[in-house]
Amino acid sequence: MQKHCRIFLTTCLLTPLLACQSPPKPENIVAAQLQQSALTSNLAYELVESLTVEVGPRLAGSNKDLVAVHWAENKLNQLGFDKVYKEAVQVPVWSRGSAKAELISPYPQPIVITALGGSIATPTQGITAPIVRFDSLATLELAPADSIKGKIVFIDDVTKRYITGKGYSETVGGRSKGAVAASKKGAVAIVIRSIGTDHDRMAHTGMMRYQDGITKIPAAAMSNPDADQINLMLKRDPNVVLTLTMSPQSQGDSTSYNVIAEVTGSSKPEEIVLIGAHLDSWDEGTGAIDDGAGVAIVTAAAKLIQQLPNKPARTIRVVLYAAEEVGIIGAKAYAKAHKHELAKHYIAAESDFGAGSIYQIDYRVNEANLGALHQLSAVMTNNGLILGSNTASGGPDVSILPAQGVPVASLKQDGRDYFDYHHTPNDTLDKIDPAALQQNVAAYVQFAYLMAQSDVELRPIATTQ
Amino acid sequence: MQKHCRIFLTTCLLTPLLACQSPPKPENIVAAQLQQSALTSNLAYELVESLTVEVGPRLAGSNKDLVAVHWAENKLNQLGFDKVYKEAVQVPVWSRGSAKAELISPYPQPIVITALGGSIATPTQGITAPIVRFDSLATLELAPADSIKGKIVFIDDVTKRYITGKGYSETVGGRSKGAVAASKKGAVAIVIRSIGTDHDRMAHTGMMRYQDGITKIPAAAMSNPDADQINLMLKRDPNVVLTLTMSPQSQGDSTSYNVIAEVTGSSKPEEIVLIGAHLDSWDEGTGAIDDGAGVAIVTAAAKLIQQLPNKPARTIRVVLYAAEEVGIIGAKAYAKAHKHELAKHYIAAESDFGAGSIYQIDYRVNEANLGALHQLSAVMTNNGLILGSNTASGGPDVSILPAQGVPVASLKQDGRDYFDYHHTPNDTLDKIDPAALQQNVAAYVQFAYLMAQSDVELRPIATTQ
Repeated sequence: MQKHCRIFLTTCLLTPLLACQSPPKPENIVAAQLQQSALTSNLAYELVESLTVEVGPRLAGSNKDLVAVHWAENKLNQLGFDKVYKEAVQVPVWSRGSAKAELISPYPQPIVITALGGSIATPTQGITAPIVRFDSLATLELAPADSIKGKIVFIDDVTKRYITGKGYSETVGGRSKGAVAASKKGAVAIVIRSIGTDHDRMAHTGMMRYQDGITKIPAAAMSNPDADQINLMLKRDPNVVLTLTMSPQSQGDSTSYNVIAEVTGSSKPEEIVLIGAHLDSWDEGTGAIDDGAGVAIVTAAAKLIQQLPNKPARTIRVVLYAAEEVGIIGAKAYAKAHKHELAKHYIAAESDFGAGSIYQIDYRVNEANLGALHQLSAVMTNNGLILGSNTASGGPDVSILPAQGVPVASLKQDGRDYFDYHHTPNDTLDKIDPAALQQNVAAYVQFAYLMAQSDVELRPIATTQ
Repeated sequence: MQKHCRIFLTTCLLTPLLACQSPPKPENIVAAQLQQSALTSNLAYELVESLTVEVGPRLAGSNKDLVAVHWAENKLNQLGFDKVYKEAVQVPVWSRGSAKAELISPYPQPIVITALGGSIATPTQGITAPIVRFDSLATLELAPADSIKGKIVFIDDVTKRYITGKGYSETVGGRSKGAVAASKKGAVAIVIRSIGTDHDRMAHTGMMRYQDGITKIPAAAMSNPDADQINLMLKRDPNVVLTLTMSPQSQGDSTSYNVIAEVTGSSKPEEIVLIGAHLDSWDEGTGAIDDGAGVAIVTAAAKLIQQLPNKPARTIRVVLYAAEEVGIIGAKAYAKAHKHELAKHYIAAESDFGAGSIYQIDYRVNEANLGALHQLSAVMTNNGLILGSNTASGGPDVSILPAQGVPVASLKQDGRDYFDYHHTPNDTLDKIDPAALQQNVAAYVQFAYLMAQSDVELRPIATTQ
């Protein structure tokens, strides 16, 4: 006991961040060391630099997507993980082609647009029609069809800036469901205000969906300044006519891969702590914040655990998902391929929200044990996190796992500038703050380590409100 | 005397901003009133909104350039100036066509470029060659030709951010003179880092020049993130190969116009206070900050003087120059057409630096009388200006007048964000702060009024250092 106290006092002096009311738990000492290692490591930045420079844009199903898979396998092998493997995923192939739009009347001038992912092309000569404007998807859905028939629908929903990024969720329905809603009422095309918080003359792409039995119409987004411009024209003349010319193409399916690496658990190797990100990106930027950052964060975090002299109990599994942008296709394939072992997934979390600092961790676990889990996670507050709610989604690819009973966590990043760059040509390396990236790695490595050592029973998970 | 003191005291109480050491001069009372009118007027914002929405891009020599001339004549007539007229100017016609660039090796990916104004096209199949990088135009000029022959020159000069915008002057030589310097040493094309302070994935266009007897080569600019990207590739592999495909075209000359409005002076109508801006713009934005703002500022300022019950002594002449962007062609035509009356130009100033607040006024006048001029201008300090040096250029179009003996002033704007947007698609209305625009109008109306009333002899002007 005396000896224990001496060790305890020494540890307190050496690690002043740890509370000294009770002897620090061994996992907290390791977690604190991992935090320091993460905050002084350049590995994540080197990874995202390598991915964006040596691969760059990597649209699911494109040639560059396979270059990215090859890059990921090589990197994970070079980093010396216990296991590296890939799993085939069938993904749709869509190519952007060109997209142009020109206001014809009342004041002729070009506007900046981009095709939404999955859109069909216009005829070669384009589509020329008057614009009909709606505040939101909801107002479009309520509008009478005769005001829409033969027109180009313009959904003019402004994305608001929040730390949580919830402005995106509030408006993205117009992007994903707008074409179907517009087509049902006879529209010939749809061009939405970009789902983005910036004032750059860049349009934000992103996936849209068609529906069987509803005529497919071309779908695009215009930049925020162009949406402002059209509003100023509509104030002067309600008859604003646009010509839209786009040549995207769907080209069947192709094979991509989920790329996976593992740090094998020391005593419960069959139990899995999954930390994920997605490897694919949109094609107009270099996929730095979406989701090169996530790839770098979870890989660098796992590498720090791989380097530990004593591996944690559970296996850390890094999953670099295929084809997130085009419909979380890699995630669905993973859930199917690993159905037999989902019961062994202790918890899962995904980094897919850029490189802003993490300010909060939410869980979705057994409500009765949230307190115990918070006690275990308390050391993470030294890295700037607060312990949040029990309503986590886990991130896009991971969000389908709770339906299978898998507990998840959301390490919530400051998203105030994420939707300035998201899904635009502006998603490039210079948008990443290296210090914030290190803070992310620190959070993920602590999370992964603590979860891999945890004695808290996380199941059954809380039902959603 | 008693009566005078009573009036003086009353004025002091009513206008607390004026110094009360001596009775305020009548022109200072009017100047203070004009400031208040300017700071509460929306006219300038309405003008720049109208120009950018109803005309938009207006490249010199294009159809839209003539739409802009028509717009300007109409607006100036509607505003009720004493005189409105236009003067023909022959301008070169150049159309941008398309511009694409693709890194071929070592890491294939597209980069974002734009053709520089005046550039020739590449062959249809493009030009494919290795890149050779230089820090600046100066290092290119010093380099041995055998390192350049057959290559694409990349001038990688970073534009620094200053309130004065001097980062632009430090780097713009690479844009204007780079093609000649590169071609002299056998380069097949030149692609410079954009002359711009932003991190947007947008390239900054702007004029370049060829030289008789030197082979013309295609010239383009790449965005700052793309320049960073190429540097990261060059660190990995010195052999970076680019394919450049551009289709700009020069199409001879066409007629444009300087559009001019006047407030006739009450007692010295033949003497002129010139306040100018340029009506043309580059073609990729809507020409809001360059130079819709200037057009709006000087027009709104002159309108406030037009409305005065007692017009000032000299004539205020608003000159909206043609074809500034493509070589201050309207300015040269003005200087030629008005040669006979340049001796009657009391002073000239141009607003062509966006819509940032004015923080300083510089003059270029008779050095012996600068003190007297500063005394006259002291009221402008109430609008946030400091009284600066005697080394003004007057603004691009006005800068050729001092060689003819004409005094000039520079109302220096805060240019810290100007080169974020300058000459890009991002030059749109949303980049203008309405309050800063009003402050500009206040400065210009005070300047124009005080100069039109001034008794200070401004000639002969100071020689430059």
